[in-house]
Amino acid sequence: MKIGVVVGSDSDLPVLERAFVVWDQYEVPYEVDIISAHRSPEFATEYAATAAERGISVIVAAAGLAAHLPGVIAANTVLPVIGLPIGGGPLKGADALYSIVQMPPGIPVATVGIDNATNAAYLALHILALGDERVRRLLVEYRSSLPEKIVAKNKELRERGLAGFIE
Amino acid sequence: MKIGVVVGSDSDLPVLERAFVVWDQYEVPYEVDIISAHRSPEFATEYAATAAERGISVIVAAAGLAAHLPGVIAANTVLPVIGLPIGGGPLKGADALYSIVQMPPGIPVATVGIDNATNAAYLALHILALGDERVRRLLVEYRSSLPEKIVAKNKELRERGLAGFIE
Amino acid sequence: MKIGVVVGSDSDLPVLERAFVVWDQYEVPYEVDIISAHRSPEFATEYAATAAERGISVIVAAAGLAAHLPGVIAANTVLPVIGLPIGGGPLKGADALYSIVQMPPGIPVATVGIDNATNAAYLALHILALGDERVRRLLVEYRSSLPEKIVAKNKELRERGLAGFIE
Amino acid sequence: MKIGVVVGSDSDLPVLERAFVVWDQYEVPYEVDIISAHRSPEFATEYAATAAERGISVIVAAAGLAAHLPGVIAANTVLPVIGLPIGGGPLKGADALYSIVQMPPGIPVATVGIDNATNAAYLALHILALGDERVRRLLVEYRSSLPEKIVAKNKELRERGLAGFIE
Amino acid sequence: MKIGVVVGSDSDLPVLERAFVVWDQYEVPYEVDIISAHRSPEFATEYAATAAERGISVIVAAAGLAAHLPGVIAANTVLPVIGLPIGGGPLKGADALYSIVQMPPGIPVATVGIDNATNAAYLALHILALGDERVRRLLVEYRSSLPEKIVAKNKELRERGLAGFIE
Amino acid sequence: MKIGVVVGSDSDLPVLERAFVVWDQYEVPYEVDIISAHRSPEFATEYAATAAERGISVIVAAAGLAAHLPGVIAANTVLPVIGLPIGGGPLKGADALYSIVQMPPGIPVATVGIDNATNAAYLALHILALGDERVRRLLVEYRSSLPEKIVAKNKELRERGLAGFIE
Amino acid sequence: MKIGVVVGSDSDLPVLERAFVVWDQYEVPYEVDIISAHRSPEFATEYAATAAERGISVIVAAAGLAAHLPGVIAANTVLPVIGLPIGGGPLKGADALYSIVQMPPGIPVATVGIDNATNAAYLALHILALGDERVRRLLVEYRSSLPEKIVAKNKELRERGLAGFIE
Amino acid sequence: MKIGVVVGSDSDLPVLERAFVVWDQYEVPYEVDIISAHRSPEFATEYAATAAERGISVIVAAAGLAAHLPGVIAANTVLPVIGLPIGGGPLKGADALYSIVQMPPGIPVATVGIDNATNAAYLALHILALGDERVRRLLVEYRSSLPEKIVAKNKELRERGLAGFIE
Repeated sequence: MKIGVVVGSDSDLPVLERAFVVWDQYEVPYEVDIISAHRSPEFATEYAATAAERGISVIVAAAGLAAHLPGVIAANTVLPVIGLPIGGGPLKGADALYSIVQMPPGIPVATVGIDNATNAAYLALHILALGDERVRRLLVEYRSSLPEKIVAKNKELRERGLAGFIE
Repeated sequence: MKIGVVVGSDSDLPVLERAFVVWDQYEVPYEVDIISAHRSPEFATEYAATAAERGISVIVAAAGLAAHLPGVIAANTVLPVIGLPIGGGPLKGADALYSIVQMPPGIPVATVGIDNATNAAYLALHILALGDERVRRLLVEYRSSLPEKIVAKNKELRERGLAGFIE
Repeated sequence: MKIGVVVGSDSDLPVLERAFVVWDQYEVPYEVDIISAHRSPEFATEYAATAAERGISVIVAAAGLAAHLPGVIAANTVLPVIGLPIGGGPLKGADALYSIVQMPPGIPVATVGIDNATNAAYLALHILALGDERVRRLLVEYRSSLPEKIVAKNKELRERGLAGFIE
Repeated sequence: MKIGVVVGSDSDLPVLERAFVVWDQYEVPYEVDIISAHRSPEFATEYAATAAERGISVIVAAAGLAAHLPGVIAANTVLPVIGLPIGGGPLKGADALYSIVQMPPGIPVATVGIDNATNAAYLALHILALGDERVRRLLVEYRSSLPEKIVAKNKELRERGLAGFIE
Repeated sequence: MKIGVVVGSDSDLPVLERAFVVWDQYEVPYEVDIISAHRSPEFATEYAATAAERGISVIVAAAGLAAHLPGVIAANTVLPVIGLPIGGGPLKGADALYSIVQMPPGIPVATVGIDNATNAAYLALHILALGDERVRRLLVEYRSSLPEKIVAKNKELRERGLAGFIE
Repeated sequence: MKIGVVVGSDSDLPVLERAFVVWDQYEVPYEVDIISAHRSPEFATEYAATAAERGISVIVAAAGLAAHLPGVIAANTVLPVIGLPIGGGPLKGADALYSIVQMPPGIPVATVGIDNATNAAYLALHILALGDERVRRLLVEYRSSLPEKIVAKNKELRERGLAGFIE
Repeated sequence: MKIGVVVGSDSDLPVLERAFVVWDQYEVPYEVDIISAHRSPEFATEYAATAAERGISVIVAAAGLAAHLPGVIAANTVLPVIGLPIGGGPLKGADALYSIVQMPPGIPVATVGIDNATNAAYLALHILALGDERVRRLLVEYRSSLPEKIVAKNKELRERGLAGFIE
Repeated sequence: MKIGVVVGSDSDLPVLERAFVVWDQYEVPYEVDIISAHRSPEFATEYAATAAERGISVIVAAAGLAAHLPGVIAANTVLPVIGLPIGGGPLKGADALYSIVQMPPGIPVATVGIDNATNAAYLALHILALGDERVRRLLVEYRSSLPEKIVAKNKELRERGLAGFIE
């Protein structure tokens, strides 16, 4: 069980950092590759075609602008592929969102929000959790912990007052 | 192993038919419920919270307009939730797409294209295939069959000529 | 008579400050809670269901991105719910606006402009004024004062000249 | 207690019909006027300025395209004004939505979804319910009835099967 | 012959500066007023209704967000009204553009580009030039001078080289 | 005094019909030419450059898609040019609106709403009225007549009732 | 010299017909293949990689929705690739336009308007004309003929009158 | 063989620099002119009409806002014209993109991504390569070199680790 991460450009890696933090907390192994759908199309095909045999269960593919990488990966594997549209650029990621989510019938990409690497990370975990009781339990714990954090925030808000809290 | 389908309104069901056809072909069981995030919020919460114990592995949630249903379902389960934005309405599903895909960090929804029930169906199968060798094999077969279909289309195109084919 | 304010994230609180200033001027009590539709769904449901009995008359719910909070609150109360879309993020609040305003028939959210906390504040006051003569009189006074302020601005403009005024 | 309805053009009246049905069910009186912000600006001003003394508690203003009517009404009254963007036209109501919801600070319009007259109707009722126990009880009943309707829909779905139901 | 300028808010005045520069060059008198369609609706009506008799020939009305001011002015005069959408705000002036340009049939506003005060200025001059030979001649001269300026730019480009020029 | 109308394609002429009706009512002469900015660029240039000497005072230029015609005309004359974006096509006239309204500083086009030929017609009349007392009086009469028409509509609404009126 | 046409789906072929008509007029050979970037990725790669040696000089690639085909083709050849976004679908081709035009630096696709197969056809001819005097002369003739057609249209307009012409 | 570059404004030149770098590497001559479609319409026409005889094979035309320059150039030559939409401005280049790509049938502009001067440069080279074996070979080499660069990036990533690499 391993998560495969592919980014269309090394300049997209900082956006992914929030995903790495999540997976490190869950102690789920992942490996990261820089693969361009257009500058190294054979790598993309090969990466996708051999991902399963290299032990990868879920692929997260991040790309901006025309953002074909997630779709190209998805076309060459039956592993679930999560598409992460990278913002930036003049159209602010609306272009990447459309390119990733509007895939033709038969080749889906599981799309998350623009620049929302945290959700790409968690979506991968929710999928893995179907076959991994440890991850499932950790996700349940995480969800259970969220209300407490909000209780704590509200307590802090009450104690410090609005003005103090906003500061 | 079962797919849970929830639609925000029974008027969305015809869009889902293409998903039912796919799952019937793959002989994967699914059950369909009409649940509104706003008109029956308790059902939505309860559905999500008990889905796993009722044998559901993946949930497909379809909704139009503000389209909160997939997010509300996702907030109450650690099963993977696939969001299907329903088009129609004055904004043609752009509203539903944004509402479904732009979830806050920590609670992802795996979004597919507007009205693209086929891809919701296949995405569910790709996820299930991780733990089900039969489904995985069928997906590999399906993918292998696609080029043949395109070869056949091109052959038909050559034989009938452009004018004949377009007719 | 009290206004209930819920924000989806404590990072949204600074946007709300302009509302607090208005309500402080009108001496209308309000209480603020951080409640996430997705990270603490039960709190959201409970908050809405018990708001009336806790003396709340109008609820202002602010959220960004998928922005389901106002709708989830509205689904669990018959109090009027004002939705404030929070901007920021790659889509600049267009996503939040659509998610809040395009509610399904039967469960309305009274939506104001993106990041326009001042208007969320005044809309709450206009609603309260129906049953509170003091607030109504203050609103009438406020409206009466607006032309004077504009007269003063124009006087300043005449006295200082365009160049001086723009500086 | 009465609801005032103003439409920018008589061609908008059919969209409003769903609101009239709701108010008839709730036995809440309403009166309808055709008033253009631009073709009869004095009427608009006068309508708004005298609405309260004519017994109107809440105003619903519907308009398409540039859709200035709700804002012009709101500028001349301290009654709550609900803005209903009318779709149609080349921009499908996105223009009307922006014109109505993006009001300047201090003069709010409570905006509902494009062409969603049902929600304009219910939002008016939620506001009136603050001061009218009968309306409040009817709204609570309505909300309580929604889950039953959904239970019935699901029952019908189970009995007739998917294929039969979709027909 | 005089140009009347109205801005919805004094914060819009800096955008207008480029218009003032143009009119100063053409020695065409103009007067500037801060008038809000919503905060001082009577001023707006009165301003428009009396503009002609105060010697104003063309009105430039600038506003942002819902941007009703140009339409409200246009509704109360038969003078030509030029609408200048002010950008800024979360929707970058797309809201103001739609609100100004999509006026209902019968009450036109001559709309120019977002924040393009220079074009509001020139459009006013083109209209005035119909009845003012001096202005017409100056406009013809201005147009004749534009190619020379471009010749000069190209000459500078040739002399300094691309790298030097871009610096 | 004459209005010059240019359309980018003869398929745009039906949209213009509402303008012709208005000008016929006002007995203002107009002449119509089909001129493409791209298929007959010299005609466009020549048309614009000689329009004034042919007795034209105001030009209405209508075009769809990239819609360069109004700008090309405006670049070759100092007469006021009114741009009418034609809808239709996949982007519904949003492309034409942007192309027409976002002109570079110095060469304005007075833009009206998408497909709103009535407003192109009236804007031309408002401009002509500056130098033509007869047209000005007719415009004042037209405006004065609008409230009466609305009074009549409301009277009809009262007499026939809502249901009867909507039919 | 031959034009290669690839369409993502046989349902796109009718849109291409206007291109075939143009090329038939110019007697330029072309061949058409149905190739999906996602359903037959190897075909797409192979098609592009071998296009030059099969005598193809320019490739026209048409696709809708996520529309990755033109980019995938471009990534595997140094022939010029023209991308034709196919409209239809809920986003009306805006998705396809963004996916085709916003290619990453280094791998361009020459994009034409949504559904504008005529322009894909002519762009291919303009490129071929650089090395083919016959095509160049035909293009010059075509351009020379356009003003005449417009003269004829205007003549017809004068003879039949506006009303007759519009019929 | 020479590339002609025209920019609508000298402020657009810095965006073009990335194109100059590419052409310098390929040792392909180019010349740059500042030509406005609206401020110097005759230059634009003349430039386009005489480009071929001045030895230009391909024209790159860059413009922002209404961005008519590429279309005006294309209307006056049968050379291939590449349109480069310049971003910036309130609509971030979406206006320029639409104005450039949505040309009327018969007069195509080969459009590349917003601000993507690198792709304008490469598209010109792909077109020139059809008739220039040296350029073709350099493009093939460039493409062959891209995978190596990605291999090197991945090697660096493995050696430095994620944290080190992102720094």
